[in-house]
Amino acid sequence: MPHIKLPADLPGIRSAMAFRPETAKPLNELAEILLHRPNSLPQGDRELIATYVSYLNDCYFCQTVHGAIAAACLNDDHDLVIRVKADFHVAEISEKLKTLLVIAAKVQKGGKSVTATDVEAARAHGATDMEIHDTVLIAAAFCMYNRYVDGLDAWQPRTEEAYRERGKRTAREGYVQMSKEFLPQAVR
Amino acid sequence: MPHIKLPADLPGIRSAMAFRPETAKPLNELAEILLHRPNSLPQGDRELIATYVSYLNDCYFCQTVHGAIAAACLNDDHDLVIRVKADFHVAEISEKLKTLLVIAAKVQKGGKSVTATDVEAARAHGATDMEIHDTVLIAAAFCMYNRYVDGLDAWQPRTEEAYRERGKRTAREGYVQMSKEFLPQAVR
Repeated sequence: MPHIKLPADLPGIRSAMAFRPETAKPLNELAEILLHRPNSLPQGDRELIATYVSYLNDCYFCQTVHGAIAAACLNDDHDLVIRVKADFHVAEISEKLKTLLVIAAKVQKGGKSVTATDVEAARAHGATDMEIHDTVLIAAAFCMYNRYVDGLDAWQPRTEEAYRERGKRTAREGYVQMSKEFLPQAVR
Repeated sequence: MPHIKLPADLPGIRSAMAFRPETAKPLNELAEILLHRPNSLPQGDRELIATYVSYLNDCYFCQTVHGAIAAACLNDDHDLVIRVKADFHVAEISEKLKTLLVIAAKVQKGGKSVTATDVEAARAHGATDMEIHDTVLIAAAFCMYNRYVDGLDAWQPRTEEAYRERGKRTAREGYVQMSKEFLPQAVR
């Protein structure tokens, strides 16, 4: 039962966004730029960072929906998403992404946890300043999205299949486009 | 020394925003809606919530600039801001704001920390669903802004007087307007 009267037919962050469409607009635009727009970091890598931080914050809705989007970007490899969450150091992902996940996990604990050594390791594997910036901001943003969903105790259905279907569409169409289904036209 | 090459002449989040103006736009819009636009929660109360969460996250830049904005909204009472950070339960603020600060502090720890009892206490002091929503999202958003600033190790000058001057202007003009000084026109 959510802490406030959220629309009953929408799960997770969508119910909170429909309750307050004004704030939904910048929240969706931020996700669109960080996760969906073309970027030197592959879309699947960025969604894995979002998924991993949401897993560390123990947010079921966010880790499941972004895990589904990540898998949709990675040849439907849902097992890879599970292995990244379990121990990304031994998962079949690039060494560069591993160094970025180290930074993301530090940001999840607190910004001051990130060290110059962490950043040097990412650079040594080819990460650019922009990629390091985006990793920090993706991780920081999911510390917000996760707290938004769980802080309101939004409804989070445990039907993984539904998340997979939506994940495929979001991977393709992006966050702003998908939000048109449940946000009034004036604030999209 | 910041972890990446940020503009050297801008402090705190402004250096990160100038580095990546595309993401600065929704970040400023979110702050504008939550903290500056007319709302049943007084502007000073909302800035105190932002300040308190930034204090709990130990982010010098954010707690100092938002503390200065809060004080500017509260008859320049900088001592009140200090007392709220030290122990808001005995500070001269409304009982309603105290219950909202309890919720904000729980969100800072993690969204799941917020209990139905915390929310009932806020309601018993007159908080509406929208005010509870905004409290949760302000607290969650500052868990992002704080991590963004500290995760990049952005420059945070220890000249409190400069923050006070800027705080007065931001309290009056808002975040989107103030960002025009350092963001390119195309993305404002």
